[in-house]
Amino acid sequence: MTPKKPNQAALIEGKPALLVIDIQASTFIDDSTERAIANMPGYKDRMIACRELIEAAHAADTPVIFVQEIHRSDGVDFGRELDGDEDVHCLDTDPRTEIAYDQMGFRKGDYIIPKRRYSAFFGTDLEILLRGLGVQTLILCGGLTDVCVHYTFVDGHQWDYHCRVVEDCVGGSSLDAHDAALRAMAYLQRGAVQSRSAVVDALQKTGVDKP
Amino acid sequence: MTPKKPNQAALIEGKPALLVIDIQASTFIDDSTERAIANMPGYKDRMIACRELIEAAHAADTPVIFVQEIHRSDGVDFGRELDGDEDVHCLDTDPRTEIAYDQMGFRKGDYIIPKRRYSAFFGTDLEILLRGLGVQTLILCGGLTDVCVHYTFVDGHQWDYHCRVVEDCVGGSSLDAHDAALRAMAYLQRGAVQSRSAVVDALQKTGVDKP
Amino acid sequence: MTPKKPNQAALIEGKPALLVIDIQASTFIDDSTERAIANMPGYKDRMIACRELIEAAHAADTPVIFVQEIHRSDGVDFGRELDGDEDVHCLDTDPRTEIAYDQMGFRKGDYIIPKRRYSAFFGTDLEILLRGLGVQTLILCGGLTDVCVHYTFVDGHQWDYHCRVVEDCVGGSSLDAHDAALRAMAYLQRGAVQSRSAVVDALQKTGVDKP
Amino acid sequence: MTPKKPNQAALIEGKPALLVIDIQASTFIDDSTERAIANMPGYKDRMIACRELIEAAHAADTPVIFVQEIHRSDGVDFGRELDGDEDVHCLDTDPRTEIAYDQMGFRKGDYIIPKRRYSAFFGTDLEILLRGLGVQTLILCGGLTDVCVHYTFVDGHQWDYHCRVVEDCVGGSSLDAHDAALRAMAYLQRGAVQSRSAVVDALQKTGVDKP
Repeated sequence: MTPKKPNQAALIEGKPALLVIDIQASTFIDDSTERAIANMPGYKDRMIACRELIEAAHAADTPVIFVQEIHRSDGVDFGRELDGDEDVHCLDTDPRTEIAYDQMGFRKGDYIIPKRRYSAFFGTDLEILLRGLGVQTLILCGGLTDVCVHYTFVDGHQWDYHCRVVEDCVGGSSLDAHDAALRAMAYLQRGAVQSRSAVVDALQKTGVDKP
Repeated sequence: MTPKKPNQAALIEGKPALLVIDIQASTFIDDSTERAIANMPGYKDRMIACRELIEAAHAADTPVIFVQEIHRSDGVDFGRELDGDEDVHCLDTDPRTEIAYDQMGFRKGDYIIPKRRYSAFFGTDLEILLRGLGVQTLILCGGLTDVCVHYTFVDGHQWDYHCRVVEDCVGGSSLDAHDAALRAMAYLQRGAVQSRSAVVDALQKTGVDKP
Repeated sequence: MTPKKPNQAALIEGKPALLVIDIQASTFIDDSTERAIANMPGYKDRMIACRELIEAAHAADTPVIFVQEIHRSDGVDFGRELDGDEDVHCLDTDPRTEIAYDQMGFRKGDYIIPKRRYSAFFGTDLEILLRGLGVQTLILCGGLTDVCVHYTFVDGHQWDYHCRVVEDCVGGSSLDAHDAALRAMAYLQRGAVQSRSAVVDALQKTGVDKP
Repeated sequence: MTPKKPNQAALIEGKPALLVIDIQASTFIDDSTERAIANMPGYKDRMIACRELIEAAHAADTPVIFVQEIHRSDGVDFGRELDGDEDVHCLDTDPRTEIAYDQMGFRKGDYIIPKRRYSAFFGTDLEILLRGLGVQTLILCGGLTDVCVHYTFVDGHQWDYHCRVVEDCVGGSSLDAHDAALRAMAYLQRGAVQSRSAVVDALQKTGVDKP
């Protein structure tokens, strides 16, 4: 058999899951312009927009997985994360590290994956969970487009998942970095970059197919 | 103890290793403009420039690790790699998949890491090798800046290595993608992006310190 | 260089950490003979004996890491764990799943690693933590000798740690299985099987060396 | 949903693959009683018996994966493997490290997975290959029952595969260690330990079901 390029995949192949990445209380209670991690303009509104995705996933019985960046308060697990642009962030003793439960409409049955690194697959049980759920398509929203979203996408891609990123439901460290990360994800999978409305439509259709 | 941002690291912290990523025969024997994987202008010259790094590493007794993208010829291990911009590439039956031994001055004692995915850490024994060598700083050259170099850097970063990318010894799928990937790596670690001359200097100094 | 067998390592090489594996409330509140997971005679006393190790580690400023088997209550992450001798166990909604904080003398600064599988390295941030701590020797106690202790030992071994198991502070699913697992660990590293008193002595000496 | 114990699985669930573990030239050309790695009596005959499994797999179009222990000749990747009972073994410069191609009836289309550690999943692309093949059941033969077979089984188990070990086609470092490892595998999955004749029968039936 000679390998061939496959046809372009559907927006949702097999069973989907929605990954809500690092939407934490800090986004909603910290309005300082001097932040531990820089955000592009309109960041908070993009996070708020994720709620529509989450509600569509709930309505379609699609698993919703909240990924939470969290570090031990003695700093033991920062690794090299403070060697770059980011300052100390997401300590487990800081209330701003909590998932934004209310704003996101978190509900019983949703999953939480705490993580120490940028990729949600690195040092976590995400892959165990995804296998248990039988998922084949990952839909990503949250932040930062160019860090945790991008690198979670890459690991999802390397683990053979169909990966989609919702371009109006992610925000970057800057507009340029956001745009570049979207282009990098589109390079990896055609049709990777999708709008919220297209994803909501596709989720609704999976709901309809259910018996 | 409260975590704090560390001072900027030296170019080389602890023991370094040079990772030569995906410099394979195809770069030197395939001059077609229609390629399985697109390259930015000047790509081949940037790969040729890596030889100076390799020779400096040899002179300083720094381990040189050649990473080789290679796929089983029945296509079983492409995963999602053909779902994006790339076409079938690096089959193990294709002579263009060979490491560019002669052009790079490969010598006995250099290491080879075959890989199936973009990150040189994914599904390989790279981490076993780096531990065995006692390495703390990874110096990256080769291609593509925005794919295998970038995602190997990210995994190196997540595994706590000091990571450096040699900006004039890497090439991207396009100039824009190359530039964006360098900025993304600089975001992760200050001083990550270095010139060949600075790296050669730093390697020479490690040689001098040896008893 | 030709590889050679190294001399036998010291009980503690470099910095140690104590791993307390799956000592949870169920051990102390569940006296039924019909258990989800079978235990050898004297199991509870062996778990109680771990407290002496923990106190010795605390006194020597050796990190103490509590590993906790815990499963999501919808059962999504059991994988193949119910295909064998074990019944449903360690649900996150069950108070018996809690770490045995009081009985073990847990204190602030001790670490917790929740896990879904037998090996404490599988799908967890244990390796991130150990690197952050700079640990080279793992001292294992808890249960089951032949399951979570054995398979955590194996992964620690494969990740290049010096591994020690405290024979009177671990308990198996049966006495035979316990003994066989100790022999298997001794096969992997000479001097792997140690008594509590030898380990307490060695921990005290590391404390003394500190400035 | 409350988790429940599943019914016992069939010998083969979904698509199977045969893993032939560490059957290398040394088994057939080295008759010394002083070996780098000890073997139980009858070891070689048990390895020879694997050929029947391999031929049954070939006949049923079941993928055959040869796992090969192999170490870099400078010893850099032995990790802790020489700290225990084993002496220097499987150097990549030693012809005895070759897979026993002829004795095993290796044929084009069979896969090879080189490995540096005991588990065939550790630092290898085995998981990438198994996903590409769509495999759900792993059938294990080869050696050592209590080391590479056991620890590959455990990782397969932890990655959610149905795992089977062919008791008359595996050999241990001693008879006791072999028996104990089989019991440990049976603990993990009911029906894990199977005879060669039962496995050959089951493979033949998968062949029959094919269109």
